[in-house]
Amino acid sequence: MPRGRFITLEGGEGAGKSTQARLLKNTLSKLLSGSLAADGIRVLQTREPGGAPGAEAIRGVLLGSGPWDGISECMLHFAARREHVVRTIRPALEAGIWVVCDRFVDSTMAYQVFGQGVPREVFDSLAKMTLEGLTPDLTLMLDIGPEEGLTRATARGETNRYEALDPDFHARVRAGFRAIAAAEPARCAVVDATAAPEGVAAEILRIVRARLAP
Amino acid sequence: MPRGRFITLEGGEGAGKSTQARLLKNTLSKLLSGSLAADGIRVLQTREPGGAPGAEAIRGVLLGSGPWDGISECMLHFAARREHVVRTIRPALEAGIWVVCDRFVDSTMAYQVFGQGVPREVFDSLAKMTLEGLTPDLTLMLDIGPEEGLTRATARGETNRYEALDPDFHARVRAGFRAIAAAEPARCAVVDATAAPEGVAAEILRIVRARLAP
Repeated sequence: MPRGRFITLEGGEGAGKSTQARLLKNTLSKLLSGSLAADGIRVLQTREPGGAPGAEAIRGVLLGSGPWDGISECMLHFAARREHVVRTIRPALEAGIWVVCDRFVDSTMAYQVFGQGVPREVFDSLAKMTLEGLTPDLTLMLDIGPEEGLTRATARGETNRYEALDPDFHARVRAGFRAIAAAEPARCAVVDATAAPEGVAAEILRIVRARLAP
Repeated sequence: MPRGRFITLEGGEGAGKSTQARLLKNTLSKLLSGSLAADGIRVLQTREPGGAPGAEAIRGVLLGSGPWDGISECMLHFAARREHVVRTIRPALEAGIWVVCDRFVDSTMAYQVFGQGVPREVFDSLAKMTLEGLTPDLTLMLDIGPEEGLTRATARGETNRYEALDPDFHARVRAGFRAIAAAEPARCAVVDATAAPEGVAAEILRIVRARLAP
């Protein structure tokens, strides 16, 4: 059984990550079960913070308490991520399951390091002890202007602590995602997230086919 | 206003840490308010995991969920500790308040590194980003055999996940506390915790007077 592929979706508020994760999971499930194996290849859709029992408990604390010191918040995200990686993502990939994940390590870099000013070496050191070499095979950076994204998120009735922060914060987060994509072009692809969901889904599928050839 | 002094109590289950923290806090409050300043010097008694709102929320997750991967658990303890240090301990010390803390960083070393086998470099790296140089002025290591300690803890009706772990684990934890005390004799004092609480309290007061001269 070949190892599954690990695809992450990243981006600011209102970029459509969860919608696109669901659409991609459904499309990939059909493609992979039809073409590659008699018993099909499964696709797991998951999200952060969360995706494992302990990680969901940490998500509740992260969103329900605070405000957090930036370094504490970084440690909580990585503790949740470690549970997610150890209990969910790694076992799925090793069982040949493809994993589509709504937010991963780049969100912590964009929000905590670029947005909140947590030192880069804190991030690097937590990432090393958490991931032990695991890297997404493909990261789709859904790019949208902070104002348009926040308007969308508000229209959906979704607000959380991050969405309440100031516009400069969201501009730094967007710049963070773009900087990561520019630094790691082999792993990352920037997707214009201002189009209609079907258009964005088609572009994502084109990129997945080109990069991972499913 | 001189900086307050930072005293931690460490040891395995049933060693009497919370009883001794309370007794020491009461004795120190009387000593310090009577002898050193017209308006007295305050003493804050606190504990880990906990001691700040976010840290108490993390304590709930730590004890209520799991079992945790050892590295995740280590990160959760340090996230709680970071909130405790930033919100509670450091401001108190800077305001001249003495802090008496039931468990601190040595518990994570004893339980997670010696007990559970988390790599030492994970601990070191988390400790560095959490503490930013803060070290207790005095650490009282309450030493008791694991069997006697567990019998006491069970008699108090206290059981938690750690107490349910196997005897070898508790032997490793005790060895961990002793190794820390041996490596840092200027900071640590081992106290025989098998005596009656009044006797242990008298020995602790003797050490505090000798080392910190309050």
